[in-house]
Amino acid sequence: MAGPEIERLIQLLARLPGLGPRSARRAALHLLKKKDALLLPLAATLREVGDSVHACSTCGNLDSRDPCAICTDSRRDESLLCVVESVADLWALERAGVFRGRYHVLGGTLSALDGVGPTDLNVDGLVARVNGGRVKEVIIATNATVEGQTTAHYITDRVAPSGVQITRLAHGVPVGGELDYLDDGTLGAALKARRPL
Amino acid sequence: MAGPEIERLIQLLARLPGLGPRSARRAALHLLKKKDALLLPLAATLREVGDSVHACSTCGNLDSRDPCAICTDSRRDESLLCVVESVADLWALERAGVFRGRYHVLGGTLSALDGVGPTDLNVDGLVARVNGGRVKEVIIATNATVEGQTTAHYITDRVAPSGVQITRLAHGVPVGGELDYLDDGTLGAALKARRPL
Ligand SMILES: [Zn+2]
Ligand SMILES: [Zn+2]
Repeated sequence: MAGPEIERLIQLLARLPGLGPRSARRAALHLLKKKDALLLPLAATLREVGDSVHACSTCGNLDSRDPCAICTDSRRDESLLCVVESVADLWALERAGVFRGRYHVLGGTLSALDGVGPTDLNVDGLVARVNGGRVKEVIIATNATVEGQTTAHYITDRVAPSGVQITRLAHGVPVGGELDYLDDGTLGAALKARRPL
Repeated sequence: MAGPEIERLIQLLARLPGLGPRSARRAALHLLKKKDALLLPLAATLREVGDSVHACSTCGNLDSRDPCAICTDSRRDESLLCVVESVADLWALERAGVFRGRYHVLGGTLSALDGVGPTDLNVDGLVARVNGGRVKEVIIATNATVEGQTTAHYITDRVAPSGVQITRLAHGVPVGGELDYLDDGTLGAALKARRPL
């Protein structure tokens, strides 16, 4: 086998999602082959990200600033608050470039199975932001899973007393999606939410 | 999008074999979630590996010692020299635990297409080791590809004048392999090299 340092590197790489033991070995060798172009820059960037990036105390986004770049961007509409499960979902919406309001990251979904209750999610922070008076609409963008929908209902109950408008992302046929490949639930929702042409 | 530090981390991770842009984002988020348990240890280990691990000046293996742990292991038979294309192949043989001699890593294969010639591989070092007088058998374990076989022939020509025995790994049916799934070349080689039961 390889020496203890390399074995440790392989073990750590194998814990990344998408890499198994075999691909972790290949990745370690690739890193060693490209020491100056990849291994050392990756080490430095990991250290830098580890030292500087933290969860935004306002919205839960990950950034080197707190509040984060989105929370402090005055061009973004602070009256629109999009509630997402995770930073990954926030990134997906930002990549799409379709939303110009602010976010609130819950940090997960309610799950009896995994023992995730309301206090494990950043819901109190959401309620406080909504009660702050500047938010006019809360857009619930949790995933269309059972847990996501359960969480959406719970958030609705918690936010409703404030009187702000609560909306959720529409269900329907994905753009470019083929009906033949869609599940019954999506087809049913798309049919129910049909709109005049 | 994420901030510049995170974007840079994603770009570097996406250059690892086995990770695309999408899985690199997932890996970056996973690292940020497990900052103390994974991100910082990975940064430190990369730095350590980058600083301490180098190619063994004798055999080309990667190790923090030079000569490497294999070259300096007196329990290993120095009269047997196994020639492999890459450190990955050396690791594969070590994992199998079937070889107790020493190695010589070529660092690639001859390839007219990729412009890899004899001087790009560590063949002179191999000839020098063989001429050193302690090697009795050179086992050529290049891959069973066109380039691997071409390289094997070239090495045979270069090592032959020394008079040491030159062997190569046997071709045949992989253990547990089903004939139905094997290519004609392997089947032909297995038939040709048939042995009495
Ligand atoms: Zn923020
Ligand atoms: Zn060595």
